[in-house]
Amino acid sequence: MKAFMDKDFMLNTETAKHMFHDYAESLPIIDYHCHISPKEIYEDRRYNNIAEVWLGGKNPDGSYFGDHYKWRVMRSNGVPEDKITGDAPAYEKFVEFAKALEMAVGNPMYVWSNLELHKYFGIEEPLTVENAKAIWDKTTDMLQNDPDLTVRGIIRKSNVAFIGTTDDPIDTLEWHEKLAEIKDLGFQVCPSFRPDKAINIQKEGFADYIKKLAEVAGMAAPKTTQDVIDALYNRIDFFKAHGCKASDHGIDYVMYRPATMAECDAAFAKAMSGEQVTVEEAEKYQTAILSALAKKYHKEGIVMEIHYSCTRDNNKKMFKIEGPDTGFDMIKKTVSGDNMAAFFSSLNETDELPKTIVFSLDDGDYRQIVTTLGCFQSPEVPGKMQFGAAWWFQDTKNGNLKQFNDLAELGLLGNMAGMLTDSRSFLSYTRHDYFRRLFCNYVGDLVENGEYPNIDSSLKKLAEGVSYYNAKRYFGID
Amino acid sequence: MKAFMDKDFMLNTETAKHMFHDYAESLPIIDYHCHISPKEIYEDRRYNNIAEVWLGGKNPDGSYFGDHYKWRVMRSNGVPEDKITGDAPAYEKFVEFAKALEMAVGNPMYVWSNLELHKYFGIEEPLTVENAKAIWDKTTDMLQNDPDLTVRGIIRKSNVAFIGTTDDPIDTLEWHEKLAEIKDLGFQVCPSFRPDKAINIQKEGFADYIKKLAEVAGMAAPKTTQDVIDALYNRIDFFKAHGCKASDHGIDYVMYRPATMAECDAAFAKAMSGEQVTVEEAEKYQTAILSALAKKYHKEGIVMEIHYSCTRDNNKKMFKIEGPDTGFDMIKKTVSGDNMAAFFSSLNETDELPKTIVFSLDDGDYRQIVTTLGCFQSPEVPGKMQFGAAWWFQDTKNGNLKQFNDLAELGLLGNMAGMLTDSRSFLSYTRHDYFRRLFCNYVGDLVENGEYPNIDSSLKKLAEGVSYYNAKRYFGID
Amino acid sequence: MKAFMDKDFMLNTETAKHMFHDYAESLPIIDYHCHISPKEIYEDRRYNNIAEVWLGGKNPDGSYFGDHYKWRVMRSNGVPEDKITGDAPAYEKFVEFAKALEMAVGNPMYVWSNLELHKYFGIEEPLTVENAKAIWDKTTDMLQNDPDLTVRGIIRKSNVAFIGTTDDPIDTLEWHEKLAEIKDLGFQVCPSFRPDKAINIQKEGFADYIKKLAEVAGMAAPKTTQDVIDALYNRIDFFKAHGCKASDHGIDYVMYRPATMAECDAAFAKAMSGEQVTVEEAEKYQTAILSALAKKYHKEGIVMEIHYSCTRDNNKKMFKIEGPDTGFDMIKKTVSGDNMAAFFSSLNETDELPKTIVFSLDDGDYRQIVTTLGCFQSPEVPGKMQFGAAWWFQDTKNGNLKQFNDLAELGLLGNMAGMLTDSRSFLSYTRHDYFRRLFCNYVGDLVENGEYPNIDSSLKKLAEGVSYYNAKRYFGID
Repeated sequence: MKAFMDKDFMLNTETAKHMFHDYAESLPIIDYHCHISPKEIYEDRRYNNIAEVWLGGKNPDGSYFGDHYKWRVMRSNGVPEDKITGDAPAYEKFVEFAKALEMAVGNPMYVWSNLELHKYFGIEEPLTVENAKAIWDKTTDMLQNDPDLTVRGIIRKSNVAFIGTTDDPIDTLEWHEKLAEIKDLGFQVCPSFRPDKAINIQKEGFADYIKKLAEVAGMAAPKTTQDVIDALYNRIDFFKAHGCKASDHGIDYVMYRPATMAECDAAFAKAMSGEQVTVEEAEKYQTAILSALAKKYHKEGIVMEIHYSCTRDNNKKMFKIEGPDTGFDMIKKTVSGDNMAAFFSSLNETDELPKTIVFSLDDGDYRQIVTTLGCFQSPEVPGKMQFGAAWWFQDTKNGNLKQFNDLAELGLLGNMAGMLTDSRSFLSYTRHDYFRRLFCNYVGDLVENGEYPNIDSSLKKLAEGVSYYNAKRYFGID
Repeated sequence: MKAFMDKDFMLNTETAKHMFHDYAESLPIIDYHCHISPKEIYEDRRYNNIAEVWLGGKNPDGSYFGDHYKWRVMRSNGVPEDKITGDAPAYEKFVEFAKALEMAVGNPMYVWSNLELHKYFGIEEPLTVENAKAIWDKTTDMLQNDPDLTVRGIIRKSNVAFIGTTDDPIDTLEWHEKLAEIKDLGFQVCPSFRPDKAINIQKEGFADYIKKLAEVAGMAAPKTTQDVIDALYNRIDFFKAHGCKASDHGIDYVMYRPATMAECDAAFAKAMSGEQVTVEEAEKYQTAILSALAKKYHKEGIVMEIHYSCTRDNNKKMFKIEGPDTGFDMIKKTVSGDNMAAFFSSLNETDELPKTIVFSLDDGDYRQIVTTLGCFQSPEVPGKMQFGAAWWFQDTKNGNLKQFNDLAELGLLGNMAGMLTDSRSFLSYTRHDYFRRLFCNYVGDLVENGEYPNIDSSLKKLAEGVSYYNAKRYFGID
Repeated sequence: MKAFMDKDFMLNTETAKHMFHDYAESLPIIDYHCHISPKEIYEDRRYNNIAEVWLGGKNPDGSYFGDHYKWRVMRSNGVPEDKITGDAPAYEKFVEFAKALEMAVGNPMYVWSNLELHKYFGIEEPLTVENAKAIWDKTTDMLQNDPDLTVRGIIRKSNVAFIGTTDDPIDTLEWHEKLAEIKDLGFQVCPSFRPDKAINIQKEGFADYIKKLAEVAGMAAPKTTQDVIDALYNRIDFFKAHGCKASDHGIDYVMYRPATMAECDAAFAKAMSGEQVTVEEAEKYQTAILSALAKKYHKEGIVMEIHYSCTRDNNKKMFKIEGPDTGFDMIKKTVSGDNMAAFFSSLNETDELPKTIVFSLDDGDYRQIVTTLGCFQSPEVPGKMQFGAAWWFQDTKNGNLKQFNDLAELGLLGNMAGMLTDSRSFLSYTRHDYFRRLFCNYVGDLVENGEYPNIDSSLKKLAEGVSYYNAKRYFGID
């Protein structure tokens, strides 16, 4: 039996150990997609206790912060909401979380939580109800006093070289500006462009958002689809000037319904007047905007990320109480493949297809995605069309292994741009450690089984590339 | 090489052996969902030979009984129907089955059949054409003479504590009543409520069934959807008085189309007059009935089971000859996720969502289902919304492992309510043994790989919980 | 660590080694479905170098030949098209391929390429950029001079007993005729009937093709669907006279829309006049033609192969340059199951369902397919309805293992008709070697884990059956 989470955790062969310890482990992290706050980095925030980092709570404005992955684990163990997102004392919440973990055998939350305790707090034994008090005391003390456990301390301790935050086009990027002025920060923080609100023509608040967008771009209120595009282009230029290397699109499914500009404008006018657009109308407008954005990304060398196959906020009762992003989301099955191929092909016809990373929440789509991307590779960069790391609900041991395997069998795993955290927590960098272990173990198994030769220069290239260098090359990070 | 099916069958680590032999193996069975006959239990039926138990035959009324899983195996080996469901001598059928088994490497039928021979008849070697005669003679003798091999003997020998049968709302439950009067029966037999016929408004026989239902409920012929609901509520009360703890719904896919009562009534009137309703009309009526039933289940503490993603009776020629449930069914791919979420959410808004177990025949749905259920957990009971054990065609080694893994990675495996047989045969209880082995081995692998700590109290809780105590708590069994 | 691709490659247990080396390895190959050219076999073509075999190039008529699997690997590594399908020197292409292979860890291309170098050229070490020149020189010399490395030499060296080519109904089969006249050829080459162009009523060129078909069949220009059927029947008779044992149908998805002959004729007339038919019209005509063909296949004992779930030619820009089959295809998600069942059932009602092999490019369909086929087995031959070997993008290690497992768990793996190459290259026969290793290893694992008994006669039957004898029996090959 292997010891629980020892130094060779998840490394089951000598090849895997060698690849991880000698090549992958010490490389910097490029966290090109996450949801952490540049303001908190700038202010170098301190947390009061581990419950605050892990489970969060309510912001002064009534919205919630914290890790909804953990909230789901607690709800599945029958914990009352009071002790999850509610007003119960922080320590009680922590104990309930420890209790729920016991049932979480095979859940990545078990592994991630304990890896975080291990890496940042030097705690060797797994969190249980029995040792919860001792761990609480130790972590509280360290979070409040250890100079390495401020936000910036954690980032540096994690060997992070680059952070790509997620930002709305109307954001002022003031915190990014301030961070850029710090000479010895030790890592880069760049904004990513996420214009979902300008695309969600079918959602409440669209008209107001569009007006605000134009205002921020210094333009008159948009009257046409082209006006929206102009405003977004303006903001992309602004983001690029602040170091933006990636954009991000969260869509339910991939649509592709090319239409005349007149049709798009009709849909746009309808939505701006407060009317509900049909699915068909929405798709026309969205196709036009997404195509225009993709072309601009291509021109500016910005990577396009596409996330899809998610249905959000399914529990209407809880949505009314807690709002979005509180742990009530699910995998959606969509029919996106043929649309995605048509979208890419249309951009490719004029040589305006940007570097693109595709993420689906439905692992049933994986093999289709890799074969689709394989139709649009190009000499611009090896692996121009990327199959993104296992996302959200799929970011589990077997989710990652399926992602590796599907990419390996149907594309080139060696060119993968690697892991990201997609996280709202500063302790989440251990996921990169976990990912690198899984990757080295995956390749190690193939080598030990005689399916890939034991040529050390190749193993080094694979381990270092997927851990760090591929992302560096792909995003053009200095 | 491990010996064929020895005492450590499917237990590949010391942890797995310990969990199984020391904690899981000897616990009673709660078989909360099966299709065995309370009448046969009451009458303590004896079988003439193993072919009768396994392969069945024709009932006096011309319908067929027996295990259609086995019939499929035989058909896939080219056995003529005469030697499967037909009039060939029982021994010939048995030999054909033995012959087909040789080709069934990797099929659960290979394992199940031999586990049954082992457990109930003490036969150590695998069934082959060569030893078929000896095994036939031995099993025939035991089935006809061994006092432990009557139906009740088998149930007791299997350490079954609870049996949930499957019963139509119009059933008199007379056999359940008689069984309840037996003082030293040694196990409970409770009815489960399966009102499919009151929901299948689009199927032949609906109008007649509805009239019968009202009659049994002591009501006038239903004129409205509400009348049907009243009749069903009446029968639920009757079932509850007889110990009913669960309901069951077999539907092609999960629909959710809320409508006015007037619309439902229009659809109902149309169907009652013998007209074919449209899909849309059917869904309106079905949504109303399912919602009303769910609320009643919630009120009465009855568990709601939902089985979907099956297309039945695909071979029209054989359906005309043999009727339903004769081995001509297949996995259906459905789009049910978003409807299921909307259905649960609507019930949850008024706090009337019952404890629910969801089973899909399509393993491509598994990860979506677990994430959907995770949106509706509550403090009523840990794991209120359950992802059911791998069902029917998925009840294989890898089907079960996928069910474990998807539940573990996306929910809490430790709270799973465990296995059921869904079976028409009294020898099927070995599937619980097989399931427990697979479960202990799954957890054992995680422990031995350092992914879950080797804390014995936790391993005990997991093994005992999933084998027995979780189901006891979930169904409220004394 | 196992050595790279040694004699026990992919054989991880003693049982697997025994099954492969003692039973499977030396059996002849029945390659019942491939795309190699009977003309090249007749002419006993020689290749100038390994790049020509592997990567191909342009034909005199401007079309491309070569292995588009390899082109995809190169494109994914950012190789410019010039060095893939273009005019760059052959050796440069070969080096770029070697470079791309390094990133192809886990890709079957890595394994296949090196297996081919090993088997046909005696090269022991894996191809790398470093040894590319030496391997180039050696293979060039052998291809140009070794008497065993002409097309026929390769086929004989590969121990191929039967080749089923893929041929259009209008083909003259002249090369098959000539091959049939050779007394000491040492293997059979039979045509397979692939009438896609007569079915693709919605595609450009349909009307012209139909006229040509009638001409070849010696008939007047078709006026009705029945005329097309008559012409196709005429060609089937012709093919059968030339040894045809199988037909093949490449369709996007499985449709089933029975209609009157008048409706089919209306659709046909529309298409013949050059108008675009609707999806519904197309499906009516296609259902009629496919049903008629299936009945004829049944009558003639010809196997019906169905390949579906593929979207082809997705990169419109490259399609204009390179045409079809140049590596721009992807997996399609389709809803085919219920239609497939209805199609089979309709044929079965009149006892005219032919032996059928179903291949889907979407592995999410596998378990549905096996359960569907299980509804239509019959005593004609064990495994009459076959789930085909993992196809195209799925023909990977894990694609094959999923195919084995799904067939084993839900049908009878022991009756599988085995592997085919589906290939355009004469060196691809190593895939049979790889397949047999995977199969023996799959069964070996079950045996060593105590899930199937270690009865040597059964293991022999399984290994020999799936490698050779099942296909021999299924296709009726002498």
